[in-house]
Amino acid sequence: MPSLHFTNQVDATLIKIIEGGSYNRVAVLVDGNTRQLVLPRVQSLANAHVIEMPAGDINKNLDSLAHVWEQLQLGGMTRHSLLVNLGGGVVTDLGGLAAATFKRGISFVNVPTTLLGAVDAAVGGKTGINFGGLKNEIGVFASAAAVVVSTCFFSTLPQQELMSGFAEMLKHAMLDSESQVEKILGVDLNDIDCDLLLSMLQESLNVKMRIVHQDPTEHGIRKALNLGHTVGHAFESKAMNEGAPIPHGYAVAWGLVVEAVLSHMLLGFSSEMLYRLASFVKSNYGAFYITCDHYDELINLMRHDKKTIDGEINCTLLSTCGNPIINNTITTDNIKAALDIYRDLMGI
Amino acid sequence: MPSLHFTNQVDATLIKIIEGGSYNRVAVLVDGNTRQLVLPRVQSLANAHVIEMPAGDINKNLDSLAHVWEQLQLGGMTRHSLLVNLGGGVVTDLGGLAAATFKRGISFVNVPTTLLGAVDAAVGGKTGINFGGLKNEIGVFASAAAVVVSTCFFSTLPQQELMSGFAEMLKHAMLDSESQVEKILGVDLNDIDCDLLLSMLQESLNVKMRIVHQDPTEHGIRKALNLGHTVGHAFESKAMNEGAPIPHGYAVAWGLVVEAVLSHMLLGFSSEMLYRLASFVKSNYGAFYITCDHYDELINLMRHDKKTIDGEINCTLLSTCGNPIINNTITTDNIKAALDIYRDLMGI
Repeated sequence: MPSLHFTNQVDATLIKIIEGGSYNRVAVLVDGNTRQLVLPRVQSLANAHVIEMPAGDINKNLDSLAHVWEQLQLGGMTRHSLLVNLGGGVVTDLGGLAAATFKRGISFVNVPTTLLGAVDAAVGGKTGINFGGLKNEIGVFASAAAVVVSTCFFSTLPQQELMSGFAEMLKHAMLDSESQVEKILGVDLNDIDCDLLLSMLQESLNVKMRIVHQDPTEHGIRKALNLGHTVGHAFESKAMNEGAPIPHGYAVAWGLVVEAVLSHMLLGFSSEMLYRLASFVKSNYGAFYITCDHYDELINLMRHDKKTIDGEINCTLLSTCGNPIINNTITTDNIKAALDIYRDLMGI
Repeated sequence: MPSLHFTNQVDATLIKIIEGGSYNRVAVLVDGNTRQLVLPRVQSLANAHVIEMPAGDINKNLDSLAHVWEQLQLGGMTRHSLLVNLGGGVVTDLGGLAAATFKRGISFVNVPTTLLGAVDAAVGGKTGINFGGLKNEIGVFASAAAVVVSTCFFSTLPQQELMSGFAEMLKHAMLDSESQVEKILGVDLNDIDCDLLLSMLQESLNVKMRIVHQDPTEHGIRKALNLGHTVGHAFESKAMNEGAPIPHGYAVAWGLVVEAVLSHMLLGFSSEMLYRLASFVKSNYGAFYITCDHYDELINLMRHDKKTIDGEINCTLLSTCGNPIINNTITTDNIKAALDIYRDLMGI
């Protein structure tokens, strides 16, 4: 498990990590955005060997991975060297895989520069690239030596990116307790300061770490972290197929509503909490527009989810906030009924 | 750690492994040779999805790896599927890496079809490909679910390949005890039956497993398994650079002699045992021809070994058979003196 540092003193923290590890060389992986906007603000990496990959999920591929390997060689990295991944989820996922496979594994540190990257990708030991048209098809489980989580880089991000990360924080709160959910629902997302966000992020990642710690390689309880994602991924794929992609976190927010409906139908999840969640999501994320003509397409997409076994739709639900139940088998009738209620709740 | 099966009943063993694992699909990785000569003899894989890669170390590269990933996708492999690697070290190293990274890791079973593959590559959790001109530059530590070791495939191998594997068995014996070394030195390599070889192979791999078990990721005592390899790799690289490659095991056999000389010089390793080892190697492997004009070139090659730290030559030596000492720093004067004695012992 990595050491987790929640701090807005990134430089001082990185210096301690780098000195403490006695690394013979340090490389830093950036994309075009973080090279320009973030790297110049991190003095502790001024002498690191800079490796740049093109930004965007479309570049989270084998070509970029091979490029990072080449650059690690050219920079003279050995088994005693360190790679710092400075970027969003694409950079930390791909950089983590590059480090975990270079010379059978060198140390890496993640410094996520987006809220979604911090809450979703940088912590938890999943690394990967897309391959053959499938997301994260190639990868390994590998733990960063350290993760430095700071909100000081988020001020330059578009509001939509912050909202996207916040949806994953809502998910963690739902997995943790009613009181954490209350805290999230009480936040004004248009006016949140970076210190409050940092402390909320710390609580959120503690929930995730607690679950990952119990089941690092996702054979059991870690599947709880897929809450909202079975339906969310189907929304995301549908939007992608129509050439109008939606941000991952928005898909998760809508997916959380549908899966809360399923939780109510199948496990007695509180209807009052369901209404409050739906109302929060509707006012902050709007709604993903569907009609009953789209149900079959969505069900098909859910059947092709990576977690599916033998074509049965399988998802994590909640009996209450803080009580996830994994491996619920969902019938197509269940899904159709839940989508009906989702449309009602969202007013579409 | 994998379950290790020493058996000449490969089919019955594979059937038990496959049924015991409840895999939803099975793929088998072969090269051109094992597809033709070995696969038809393994009925238990008759229905497996066959993936073929080109034979030879030169094809242990990223192109072959990507091809295997594509084929795993095309064959519909999921996280609950199995890859059987049926071949020598190239197939088990590359197939192990492909499986360990496909969907963040599916199960794999190694069935080595060469003696060198059985003793060197199939067991121990190292996977990898060559990259950027360096051997095994990209890889992970990943344990096979099972390894099925059989000598029944070895009858079609050239004698040189058997000799090559036998050198690694000599190395394991030297790491274990004087009595194991006696057993090895007493074998007539031109007339060994497959049941005796299987039982010797089992003893040899038990030595390796005992060491790997103590230090799977090679931070300490696992370096003992590099005995003979610091000098051996230098011989191998020199031969390669001159366009006259030598088999890996032969390089190891000669390397073992030089490192036994160093062990005698620096750690008081018995001169009697040294003479007997040298005589066994000379009569079974011949000698690698060098003059004192080659010393500087060889020393340079040793300095570029993957295990080198800051250009100091570092190797494992023995105080006695069964007592390896890792991380000995060797001066250039030591090496030159040892190479002089090696040439004397080998009569060159």
